[in-house]
Amino acid sequence: MSLESDIQQMAKDARQASFTVATLSTDTKNKILNAMANALTEHADAILLENQKDLNAAAQNQLSDALVDRLTLTKERIAGIANALAQLVNLPDPVGAVLSTYKKDNGLVIEKVRVPIGVIGIIFESRPNVTVDVSGLCLKSGNAVILRGGREALHTNLALYHCLNAAGLAAGLPEHAIQFISDTDRAGVKYLSQAAGFVDCIIPRGGERLIESVMEWARVPVIKHYKGLCHTYVHDSADPDMALNIIENAKVQRPGVCNAMETLLIDEKIAPSLLPKIAERLSAADVELRGDEKACAIVPSMKAADEVDWQTEYLDLILSIRIVDGVEAAIDHINHYGSHHSDAIVAADKSTATRFVEAVDSASVYINASTRFTDGGEFGMGAEIGISTDKLHARGPMGLEELCSYKYIVRGTGQVRQ
Amino acid sequence: MSLESDIQQMAKDARQASFTVATLSTDTKNKILNAMANALTEHADAILLENQKDLNAAAQNQLSDALVDRLTLTKERIAGIANALAQLVNLPDPVGAVLSTYKKDNGLVIEKVRVPIGVIGIIFESRPNVTVDVSGLCLKSGNAVILRGGREALHTNLALYHCLNAAGLAAGLPEHAIQFISDTDRAGVKYLSQAAGFVDCIIPRGGERLIESVMEWARVPVIKHYKGLCHTYVHDSADPDMALNIIENAKVQRPGVCNAMETLLIDEKIAPSLLPKIAERLSAADVELRGDEKACAIVPSMKAADEVDWQTEYLDLILSIRIVDGVEAAIDHINHYGSHHSDAIVAADKSTATRFVEAVDSASVYINASTRFTDGGEFGMGAEIGISTDKLHARGPMGLEELCSYKYIVRGTGQVRQ
Repeated sequence: MSLESDIQQMAKDARQASFTVATLSTDTKNKILNAMANALTEHADAILLENQKDLNAAAQNQLSDALVDRLTLTKERIAGIANALAQLVNLPDPVGAVLSTYKKDNGLVIEKVRVPIGVIGIIFESRPNVTVDVSGLCLKSGNAVILRGGREALHTNLALYHCLNAAGLAAGLPEHAIQFISDTDRAGVKYLSQAAGFVDCIIPRGGERLIESVMEWARVPVIKHYKGLCHTYVHDSADPDMALNIIENAKVQRPGVCNAMETLLIDEKIAPSLLPKIAERLSAADVELRGDEKACAIVPSMKAADEVDWQTEYLDLILSIRIVDGVEAAIDHINHYGSHHSDAIVAADKSTATRFVEAVDSASVYINASTRFTDGGEFGMGAEIGISTDKLHARGPMGLEELCSYKYIVRGTGQVRQ
Repeated sequence: MSLESDIQQMAKDARQASFTVATLSTDTKNKILNAMANALTEHADAILLENQKDLNAAAQNQLSDALVDRLTLTKERIAGIANALAQLVNLPDPVGAVLSTYKKDNGLVIEKVRVPIGVIGIIFESRPNVTVDVSGLCLKSGNAVILRGGREALHTNLALYHCLNAAGLAAGLPEHAIQFISDTDRAGVKYLSQAAGFVDCIIPRGGERLIESVMEWARVPVIKHYKGLCHTYVHDSADPDMALNIIENAKVQRPGVCNAMETLLIDEKIAPSLLPKIAERLSAADVELRGDEKACAIVPSMKAADEVDWQTEYLDLILSIRIVDGVEAAIDHINHYGSHHSDAIVAADKSTATRFVEAVDSASVYINASTRFTDGGEFGMGAEIGISTDKLHARGPMGLEELCSYKYIVRGTGQVRQ
C-alpha cells in the first residue's frame, strides 16, 4: 500500500463513519468524551514515556527552547488536557438546533437545522494537546476527523491518539470516526488536501510554509488558521495611561501568540507626549522598538523600521512603530499590511472609534481593550479548534458551532410547485 | 497589457472599492438599485440590439433551442429583470445586523456583527439576467463584484453591464465596485480564481467542466454551484395519489433545472401496485423510464438502467427508477450517488420520514413535497445568487445574508488580559 492509497482509504472510511457520528445522541457523545478523558489520566505514565522519545529527539535536533516547551508533557499538563476534554461534556450539543423557521402560505414549513460538516481534516504542528482538543471538538460537533500532526511530536501524538481511540471505541465511538496519519511524509498533507468527495474541510494550523503548501495542493475547501499581524492604533483622544497598559499587555504578556500586537500606530498629535513613555515602559520589558522616521525623531534611541517591518509577524519582543496623521491613515495601514486577525483602537472619541471598527476589515476589532482577548474561551465559546483568518464560513475563533453546517428540512402535505 | 495583468488590476481595484461599498448606507444602495433598474428599462432597445448579435451568432453556431431560449431577451423579459432589481430595495440590508452579543464579567462587550465578504468573483454561463441579478445582490450586500459571463452572451452581458454601471456611478456607486471581464478567453477564469488576497470568494455557476476547472485552478475560496442529482423515495406508507403528484411535478414541471428529480426510489412493498401507475402518468408526459431489474419486471416496457444512470443528471425528460428494500437502502443510495442538493421522501409514517431527513446528507430534504421548491424565493430569501452545493459557509439557496461574513466588535474600558 502506498501512502496515497492509505490516505484515500482513511478518507473513505471517515466519510462512511461520518454518517454514524452525525446522528449520535448527545448522551452517547458525552459518555465517549468522559471515557476518553479518564483514559488519558489512567495512561499518563505510558504517554509520558512516549513523550520522552520526542523530547530526546528534540534535544538531538537542537530544537528551540520555546518549541521544546510546547512539546513537553507532564502529569499536570495531561490532567489539564483531560480536564479540557471533560469540559466539552458541559457545552451544549450544537447539532440539531433549529436556526430559523419559515412558513409558506401553501403550508410548507422550512426549517434551517444545524448539522455537522462531515469529515474534517486537520493539519497541525508541534503542540500535542491539539490531538486531544480537536478529537473532542469534532466528536461533540458530530464530525469524523483525520488528524495529521507534526513529525517532532509523533510519538506523543500517537500515544494520545491510541489512548483516546481505544477508550472511545469501548464507549460507543464509531470505528474510523477519529483517525491519525502516522506517516509524517509531507506528501500526506497533499493527499489529504486532495481527497475531494470524502473530506469536507481542511483546517491547517501552522506556519506560512504549511499554509501555502495546503493552498497550492487543496481540492477540498480550506479554512486557514494563518498568522496574526495585529495592530493597536492610539488616537489623540486616548487616555494615556489606558493606552500604556493596553500596549504593554498586547505586546508583552505573551509575545509568541497570534493575537499579540506587532505594530503600533500613534496619532501624530499625541506622539510627542506619549511615545517617550511607551518607549520607557516597553524597554523595561526588554522590547526592541523599530520606528519610522517621525518616531525615531521623538525617541532617538529607536532603531529605524523599514517596509519589511510593517509586513512582519515577529512573535517576539519586537515592536514596529509608525506615526500616522489620523484614523483614516491608521485604517489604510491596517487594511494594507494587516492579516485581518485582531486590531485595536484606543480612543475616548466615540465617532472615531466607531469609524475604526467599521472600516478595519479584521475578524476581531477592539475599542479600548487588548487584542490578546481573541480566543474561543474569552469569546464565550467554551473551547476552540483555532482562530480562522478566512472570511468564509467561520471568521475568528472557531468553536463547536463553527464546526457545523446546516441543512433545510421541508415538511409538506403533498405540495407541488406551480 | 496581458489578460493576466488586466485581471490582477481589476482584482486590486475591486479590493480597494470593496472598503467603500462595505460602508455605503442602505439609502445610498437603494438609490443606486433604483437608478440601475430605471436605466435598464430606458435602454431596453439598445440592449435588444446587442442581444440580437448574440442570437445571430447562436443561430450560426446551431446552439440548441433551450440555450437560445435562455439567451433571448424581449422588452417584457428586460422589464422583469429590472423589476427583480428594484425588488432588492424592499429587502432588509443584511450589513451591520448584530448576530449575537456576549458580555464578559470584566465588562467587555463582544458583538458578532454581519459584514460583507469583500470581493466576489462570479463565473457563469449563458443566462444574461445573471449579470443584473448578481450585480444587484452584491451591491445590496455591500460587496464588490467581478463578473465573468459566457462567450455566447457577451454582447448582451456587456450591454447590460455598461447600462447598469453608468447609471450606478451617476447615483453614487463607487468606481470598480462592479466590473465585467469582457475577454472570454478561458484563461481569465484561471487568473480570477488565483487572485488570492484581492478576491475573497469565487462562485462558479455552471456545468461540470467549468466547476472542475475552477477547482483545479483556485487559490481563492470557492462556493460551488454544482449539479443537482435529486431523488424522491416513496415509502410503503405513502399516500399513492400524493406520491404520483409529487413525482410528476419533480420530474416534469421543469426538467432542465437543478432541483428536478433524476432518480426515483420505490419501496419494494409498494412498487407492484404503484409503479404501473407512475409509468402510465409519466409516459403520458413523454418521460423515458429506465428501471433496475425489479422495476423492469413490474413494468416490462421500461428500458434497463445501468450504473451510469444512477450517476447521471439528465436535465431532461428521463427518469431512472430503483426498487429498494426500505428507508436505509434509500438513504445509502442517495448519500452514495446523490449530489447533496435536494432529496425527498413521500411517507405517512413519521418516524421513517424523520430518519430520512436526519440521515440524508443533502442541503434540502423534503417530507411529502416536491424537490422543485429549492429556491431562494421559495425559501423566503427574496432573491438568490444561486444554490450552493458546498457544505461550508452557505448551503442550498444563497441570498443576501449568505453573501456576508461577520466580524467581532469588542468594546472595552481599558481591559487587558491577565
